[in-house]
Amino acid sequence: CENLEVLVKAFSSSFIIPDFRGFCHHLDQIYNSCKNNTNGKVASYIPQLARLKSEHWAVSVCTVDGQRYSNGDVNVPFTLQSCSKPLTYAMALGLNGTDTMHSYVGMEPSGRYFNELCLDYNNKPHNPMINAGAIMTAALVKPHLSAADRFDFIFNMYRRLAGDEFLGFNNAVFLSEKECADRNFALAYFMRENKCFPEGTRLHETLDFYFQLCSLEITAESGAVMAATLANGGINPLTGDPVLTVDAVRNTLTLMHSCGMYNYSGQFAFKVGLPSKSGVSGCVLLVIPNTMGICLWSPPLDNNGNSCRGVQFCMELVSRFNFHNFDNLRGQYTTKFDP
Amino acid sequence: CENLEVLVKAFSSSFIIPDFRGFCHHLDQIYNSCKNNTNGKVASYIPQLARLKSEHWAVSVCTVDGQRYSNGDVNVPFTLQSCSKPLTYAMALGLNGTDTMHSYVGMEPSGRYFNELCLDYNNKPHNPMINAGAIMTAALVKPHLSAADRFDFIFNMYRRLAGDEFLGFNNAVFLSEKECADRNFALAYFMRENKCFPEGTRLHETLDFYFQLCSLEITAESGAVMAATLANGGINPLTGDPVLTVDAVRNTLTLMHSCGMYNYSGQFAFKVGLPSKSGVSGCVLLVIPNTMGICLWSPPLDNNGNSCRGVQFCMELVSRFNFHNFDNLRGQYTTKFDP
Amino acid sequence: CENLEVLVKAFSSSFIIPDFRGFCHHLDQIYNSCKNNTNGKVASYIPQLARLKSEHWAVSVCTVDGQRYSNGDVNVPFTLQSCSKPLTYAMALGLNGTDTMHSYVGMEPSGRYFNELCLDYNNKPHNPMINAGAIMTAALVKPHLSAADRFDFIFNMYRRLAGDEFLGFNNAVFLSEKECADRNFALAYFMRENKCFPEGTRLHETLDFYFQLCSLEITAESGAVMAATLANGGINPLTGDPVLTVDAVRNTLTLMHSCGMYNYSGQFAFKVGLPSKSGVSGCVLLVIPNTMGICLWSPPLDNNGNSCRGVQFCMELVSRFNFHNFDNLRGQYTTKFDP
Amino acid sequence: CENLEVLVKAFSSSFIIPDFRGFCHHLDQIYNSCKNNTNGKVASYIPQLARLKSEHWAVSVCTVDGQRYSNGDVNVPFTLQSCSKPLTYAMALGLNGTDTMHSYVGMEPSGRYFNELCLDYNNKPHNPMINAGAIMTAALVKPHLSAADRFDFIFNMYRRLAGDEFLGFNNAVFLSEKECADRNFALAYFMRENKCFPEGTRLHETLDFYFQLCSLEITAESGAVMAATLANGGINPLTGDPVLTVDAVRNTLTLMHSCGMYNYSGQFAFKVGLPSKSGVSGCVLLVIPNTMGICLWSPPLDNNGNSCRGVQFCMELVSRFNFHNFDNLRGQYTTKFDP
Repeated sequence: CENLEVLVKAFSSSFIIPDFRGFCHHLDQIYNSCKNNTNGKVASYIPQLARLKSEHWAVSVCTVDGQRYSNGDVNVPFTLQSCSKPLTYAMALGLNGTDTMHSYVGMEPSGRYFNELCLDYNNKPHNPMINAGAIMTAALVKPHLSAADRFDFIFNMYRRLAGDEFLGFNNAVFLSEKECADRNFALAYFMRENKCFPEGTRLHETLDFYFQLCSLEITAESGAVMAATLANGGINPLTGDPVLTVDAVRNTLTLMHSCGMYNYSGQFAFKVGLPSKSGVSGCVLLVIPNTMGICLWSPPLDNNGNSCRGVQFCMELVSRFNFHNFDNLRGQYTTKFDP
Repeated sequence: CENLEVLVKAFSSSFIIPDFRGFCHHLDQIYNSCKNNTNGKVASYIPQLARLKSEHWAVSVCTVDGQRYSNGDVNVPFTLQSCSKPLTYAMALGLNGTDTMHSYVGMEPSGRYFNELCLDYNNKPHNPMINAGAIMTAALVKPHLSAADRFDFIFNMYRRLAGDEFLGFNNAVFLSEKECADRNFALAYFMRENKCFPEGTRLHETLDFYFQLCSLEITAESGAVMAATLANGGINPLTGDPVLTVDAVRNTLTLMHSCGMYNYSGQFAFKVGLPSKSGVSGCVLLVIPNTMGICLWSPPLDNNGNSCRGVQFCMELVSRFNFHNFDNLRGQYTTKFDP
Repeated sequence: CENLEVLVKAFSSSFIIPDFRGFCHHLDQIYNSCKNNTNGKVASYIPQLARLKSEHWAVSVCTVDGQRYSNGDVNVPFTLQSCSKPLTYAMALGLNGTDTMHSYVGMEPSGRYFNELCLDYNNKPHNPMINAGAIMTAALVKPHLSAADRFDFIFNMYRRLAGDEFLGFNNAVFLSEKECADRNFALAYFMRENKCFPEGTRLHETLDFYFQLCSLEITAESGAVMAATLANGGINPLTGDPVLTVDAVRNTLTLMHSCGMYNYSGQFAFKVGLPSKSGVSGCVLLVIPNTMGICLWSPPLDNNGNSCRGVQFCMELVSRFNFHNFDNLRGQYTTKFDP
Repeated sequence: CENLEVLVKAFSSSFIIPDFRGFCHHLDQIYNSCKNNTNGKVASYIPQLARLKSEHWAVSVCTVDGQRYSNGDVNVPFTLQSCSKPLTYAMALGLNGTDTMHSYVGMEPSGRYFNELCLDYNNKPHNPMINAGAIMTAALVKPHLSAADRFDFIFNMYRRLAGDEFLGFNNAVFLSEKECADRNFALAYFMRENKCFPEGTRLHETLDFYFQLCSLEITAESGAVMAATLANGGINPLTGDPVLTVDAVRNTLTLMHSCGMYNYSGQFAFKVGLPSKSGVSGCVLLVIPNTMGICLWSPPLDNNGNSCRGVQFCMELVSRFNFHNFDNLRGQYTTKFDP
């Protein structure tokens, strides 16, 4: 039925990107420009990530009315890593509501200096986009279910987000993450010492669940559908499935906007001005609200831990189109395209 | 001529807020609801501010196509104080360009803990919305002019922003600010010690200029026009005058969004999701990009230094209308109005 | 033979405290004065400590030439807790030397603000008197031995320190400490993440060893002998056994002086001016270098975690006698006694 | 009369350093060893300091019973700079008492990270050995006197400290310091903003007074007498003049011990273990309590701002003699000399 909707719109030319073919031509140019970027180094803290090829480069787009664009290695699976943080947060918001969620985790950037302090002035992790906050978020997803049922539940939610496109689980990555998790264990113990967790939280099970979320696999194509669901107020644009609540999406986009790109978040908000989240596998989920979701994937990372080609793509996209959060959409004086 | 434009639009019913009358009815309700809020305390660090009456309450709106709404003490003059920071920053961007500006001042929230550190890891003030950054911004406005010409220049810019509506200068406030400026002197000396300023900067003249900017007077009505100019990509919606560049406006809105409400900025971005700036006189400039500018004024301040009634107004407005930066505009499931 | 030495000295009246009887009279007065102090609260983070009676109050003195004074509950066993830190550090120095030890742990106070940061600017724990540094110190004691042999080794060292006076092990405390050790687990994982430990360190075994050191039991009497051994350059004044090296003692006294009393260390160094270490069991080891060791024990703790009666005793002692590190010993104008 | 005392002691061989000739032979060796050290750079923030010759090297000793040793440029005047801090603090203690003084300034090291924060958790400058605390100390010296009388008063106190040996005032340095004082102005304004100063403090006059104290001139010889007065409980060993109270001396030595060598203070306390204070002119005042005062002078500074030759001298001295604060004085096993 969604195909029908696409057809209807196509004929009525009421698509959100009316000239999609022209737009794709721009995307091709940016894709090729970024391909030449050989900066950065593949993450190496676990062997499974170190083995990723630095040549991989994939861009996939899905608009809120279902138009698609894909270029490069868009069907190669990779793990979500930190890109799972906003998605799990959005699901947890739906389960708990904003107030309950944010009685356990903050809603603000942590300030670039103080990554080492895992708690804010209220003794909460700063926000759900950093490890401490994401561990807390994991603790708030169906804590009373068995480990197996909990994983089933969240896997099903992710599948709905992806509209039944590719979703996998990389057990080798999970086992490696668990093995190399000194920092996450430290954060979890600090939080438990500070009585941050809801009563009854099982620390090791929570961490296992968190590592499992990081080890979910997507492709650039299925990732684009996930991002598009965020762009579309929580309704999967391909299936029409209302996966996430509008409140959850608003909160998630807000925190992706302010905290999604590690220590580069402040500069990214200034220069690109779009909600996004990156992960050490080289993935970037980029959301253009009310318009489209984009999934970028290229393993080499810059010093901030963001995909080099991914960041370059975002910069070039925003320099061509009026997608910056605070681009003026009415200005007769702008030099940017309105696609 | 702008009146003509309004007329034409009125007849073609192509206004940005088609049912402006209905919208105003909502605004009346919110105005009255906030009027009952007797929280907060008027700023008292200088006698001129301490004398402000806590009953004052004004709301004025100007849309990007020139429709107006005003309620309360909208013609009582008050000083801009920190609300001058984004405006001067926008003007300085036009003079210097983004790159030059941001070689002297940062573009990120400072993190709530570290107000006391006036410089970021690059030895720059964190952003133009805090005192250190605003003093730096003042230093970058026509530094080679004489003090008198410099003031004339900026006063004229502000007048264009306000579309020739009320703009004044409160000399008593200026003299008091200058007298009670230990912190600003400390910040300026620290920055000079760290060689932050452009060569040739005269410290005391720069501070005088900064205090003068804080002492400019507006009314809620003229402030709404200023905010509307920001909402309209820098073009004054009443006069059509291109006062600010589109780049300047994008940058300014970005930093108002992340840093405009003192220590409450992070929470405001989460809950309200709109660019805004508050000042100790009780003023809040609120921008709904591509839609309207709003000026709120009520002297009693909360612990963060933001107008109590002003913050409440923003909250209620966003709970009724889909104005939050990341509100979904397509969602059939939303419970908010699209005015 | 040591008794012979005491006898000889007694007849030649060459004791370090010539009028020991008069000195003891002062000690009685101070003991009684502190007895009335009912401030503070017994530690409660583990039940074994919470059960300590707040009435317990013991003072025991042992001079460097073997004279003894005891008052109160001087034969009631209690756990060393943090008072084990300087002692284990001194032993580890003997095993590793100053340079090797301090390539793993710092030598400076951490600054009172930043307890939460477990590592200094060189990525080492700040000093051996705080938990992170004491865990590191434990890791440096005979790491290649089996857990049993390692405990045997250190127990024997402690026994020599105490000159065969009481030394025990409280297994219930050990098990409780291990159970309630979120913070210590967090510190250990953070240090491992930062590659602080020597290669081959087994994290859980190291923590177990650290908890065992905290669970060693002394009495005020045996504790005074330990402190006297520190006062006497590492040679047990009762047995003549050279338990610790002179370098180890110098370093240990230096760090007890600057870092021994938790967040009160700076003020204690200023007001009392003597090397000391306190523990949550209510113990204070106080060293008057070249003169005597003192063990104070009283469970109620102040906000800094130091024994209330213990701190009061130190204050009164130093106000009567010229024991402050920087008291002038030649001054004809002083109002303090030279015992 | 003091000469008579020296004579009497000489015949009775009861000097504090019985074999002074042998001791001086050691000092000659250390002097020459340090002379070869060509590390470091002369301070250059004001031209008057930049002009100092890096070859200058002077060591002067004065024992608490008046024996003297001098080697090198011991009669060349240089400014005290930060070496005035402990001396003015000691005088201010005599005027105000410990409690009043320390209601305005702290008594603890600031922690090496946070030099930028000029105030401690109680909103006081951390201690009198850092700039903020020394400015506060200056504010507490006879604040009600005229500027001229205030200077006369303190100059006379310094003259008594030096036992009428050389004391001068370098007006060119004073004027330069005043000119290049952005940091000190910043600190003073921050403290005034935080209401740190006693009521009635005149900020600019206080800073002038502080700069004057930094600009007092001594020679290594007169500096050694000043240090010896501190070693001798406040009584000038040459004149018998009770310049400072015993309490003032105890407090001063305590803070020189913990905070006297800038960011190297913690390491210096560990490795050298003696109260000392350095200044950017290349001066180090070193106190061996109850024994002697030493003044070292050599302009090239290390990265911490301490005289390179000065620090080396202290290290070598303590490696030969049992002068470390916590050296065991009874140990038959020590390898150090007891002079």
